[in-house]
Amino acid sequence: MASEKSLVAVTCTAPINIAVIKYWGKRDEELILPINSSLSVTLHQDQLKTTTTAVISKDFSEDQIWLNGRKEDVGQPRIQACLREIRRLARKRRSADEKDPPPVSLSYKVHVASVNNFPTAAGLASSAAGYACLAYALAQVYGVEHDLSEVARRGSGSACRSLYGGFVEWQMGEQADGKDSIARQVASELHWPELRALILVVSAEKKPTSSTVGMQTSVETSALLRFRAEAVVPARMAEMTRYIKERDFQGFGQLTMKDSNQFHATCLDTFPPISYLNDVSRRIIHLVHCFNTHHGQTKVAYTFDAGPNAVIFTLDDTVAEFVAAVRHSFPPESNGDKFLKGLPVRPALLSDELKAALDMEPTPGGIRYIIATQVGPGPQILDDPLAHLLGPDGLPKPAA
Amino acid sequence: MASEKSLVAVTCTAPINIAVIKYWGKRDEELILPINSSLSVTLHQDQLKTTTTAVISKDFSEDQIWLNGRKEDVGQPRIQACLREIRRLARKRRSADEKDPPPVSLSYKVHVASVNNFPTAAGLASSAAGYACLAYALAQVYGVEHDLSEVARRGSGSACRSLYGGFVEWQMGEQADGKDSIARQVASELHWPELRALILVVSAEKKPTSSTVGMQTSVETSALLRFRAEAVVPARMAEMTRYIKERDFQGFGQLTMKDSNQFHATCLDTFPPISYLNDVSRRIIHLVHCFNTHHGQTKVAYTFDAGPNAVIFTLDDTVAEFVAAVRHSFPPESNGDKFLKGLPVRPALLSDELKAALDMEPTPGGIRYIIATQVGPGPQILDDPLAHLLGPDGLPKPAA
Repeated sequence: MASEKSLVAVTCTAPINIAVIKYWGKRDEELILPINSSLSVTLHQDQLKTTTTAVISKDFSEDQIWLNGRKEDVGQPRIQACLREIRRLARKRRSADEKDPPPVSLSYKVHVASVNNFPTAAGLASSAAGYACLAYALAQVYGVEHDLSEVARRGSGSACRSLYGGFVEWQMGEQADGKDSIARQVASELHWPELRALILVVSAEKKPTSSTVGMQTSVETSALLRFRAEAVVPARMAEMTRYIKERDFQGFGQLTMKDSNQFHATCLDTFPPISYLNDVSRRIIHLVHCFNTHHGQTKVAYTFDAGPNAVIFTLDDTVAEFVAAVRHSFPPESNGDKFLKGLPVRPALLSDELKAALDMEPTPGGIRYIIATQVGPGPQILDDPLAHLLGPDGLPKPAA
Repeated sequence: MASEKSLVAVTCTAPINIAVIKYWGKRDEELILPINSSLSVTLHQDQLKTTTTAVISKDFSEDQIWLNGRKEDVGQPRIQACLREIRRLARKRRSADEKDPPPVSLSYKVHVASVNNFPTAAGLASSAAGYACLAYALAQVYGVEHDLSEVARRGSGSACRSLYGGFVEWQMGEQADGKDSIARQVASELHWPELRALILVVSAEKKPTSSTVGMQTSVETSALLRFRAEAVVPARMAEMTRYIKERDFQGFGQLTMKDSNQFHATCLDTFPPISYLNDVSRRIIHLVHCFNTHHGQTKVAYTFDAGPNAVIFTLDDTVAEFVAAVRHSFPPESNGDKFLKGLPVRPALLSDELKAALDMEPTPGGIRYIIATQVGPGPQILDDPLAHLLGPDGLPKPAA
């Protein structure tokens, strides 16, 4: 038990998730309660993950945190909210289950180090993986076994969806205290083995409007967003759940695209308007629709979050041809990046008919690289002590 | 009276109009009845106009039409609808007012020639000016004095708003036959003399999705568009009318921008999505908001129709500084076009504070040229016979 030792160190990893029914807008800023439910696909950590080490020790004089090798202010309200929440759950658990006094370890300060294996703030939902991993690691060191939705959510709303693998819904809940605003697995990572995700990295620049600021402005100014949350999303949640359960790619893909488009529509209806899509994003959208029209069915689907990068969902038998279509429309520039990362993709030739159907001038260098990945599991604990990002002194290892 | 002569020729001009409450979507495709009312500003014909000559003669064996010097198919359904409608009104007028048999001229075939002094199909609402001018010219030669909303509307919905000068609403109406779906002047062209319009021409390429096809897809697929039409536009019509009557630029400008954004949001919510704005359009939006933030008030407002070009509304005392800001952000390339056309604009220097506030990398050549114009009157009849685009033989003059 953690409470017996003077130093406890745990290292975890957590995945990013890509919403197919989008979350945009809070009904409670403090508790991070959303105005609508959302649903996401957890991506595999072999390609994209956050790794977090948490160490508690009686010898630490203060909480400290390092992100991607840089010391950060642990006093940030969202980090503080996670720490407060995990300690509250740890206290509550002990008092409820064992009627003992809280263990001394609960008073220990914590050191945290976290690294992403992908660029932060590039529209790749890094904060979701980061706060899910933080919540998971803190839960290990403080001995919390409670549902962690609330802890992760207080860091970043969509982080609660990264607590599970496979297909995950975040139920908006109804209670004012947010106790019923929790993540729940809809189907596991083994449910739909043919599903693939391709991340088309358009730009790794920092995004212009942070999603926290953006969604608050949307809630205040967009009548379309209110209508979407109340009148459109509830039916879409049920519909998407059904498509996933039935592994219906036509339905899943079309609704994914529609919901991405509607999210960006509400951004545009915000005042001043928010535009996360750029001309390359729009060319990707056009490419996908041309590709599907050529095949007479929805074989690929795009979704975009708060940035210009696309995530493409498709099935394994379509990956090679679609990647070839992307190469054709966005000829890679030799910029030092390998164009294709992640899962291996076999080369494929495009038919002349498909080339003609793509109906666009090539945009060289428009896409920097592609990460090929698939559905994956939730957070993992790394057993190997060498994986720790912090040494026994609680400071970052030189290599980290 | 037209009916007495064997040949009648009339030449008219008509203006373009820019909607500040947007029309997007028909409830009746055949009669061209809109799903919501709209409101527009008529621009001055000194800068932008369509000129149309209509000639009727007992010697003509068939209706014929030339657009911008090219023979076109007079059998196009929309041209046919205008011709049928004007002849119906002409017949009706005679039978109702004079109890005479219809004049022989009603059976005369018509030759029509029409030219724009601006690029067709570049998102500059050329069809509105074109069909308004056609309706107006036909009304002259066939002796119709009835309200021409229905005639123009059957050519292109927004054309009915080009039948009047100043500020014009198109009331959606309620009747199934569309008799109450008519244009009406809200305020004349003399009402707000300080108002100016700047057309920022981003690209004269043919637009990717025609507005006729686009709006129909939107009606079929966008839940946000239905909500907008039913729940948002009615209040905005009343609000915009009040701002215009009170010459309240703050209110007018803000609502103009919001309504443009919402229209484009519903395009993005369409499936497949429609994007008329490109990266330059979005930089113009950003520039306008930075300019207004710097001044602490809404001094300029943008609106975009079915293309990437912006129309900027502002007051005369702000034109020079804003044009200088545009030059700064979009340095003109020497492409053979004069950068500034239309009304004269005096040079202005930008303060360092404003330059810093603009917060963007310059985009050389992003804007091809600017047309400076103002509010103007409705269609005009040209008395000078030299203005006719068709000769006495009913064929285009060599110069036309």
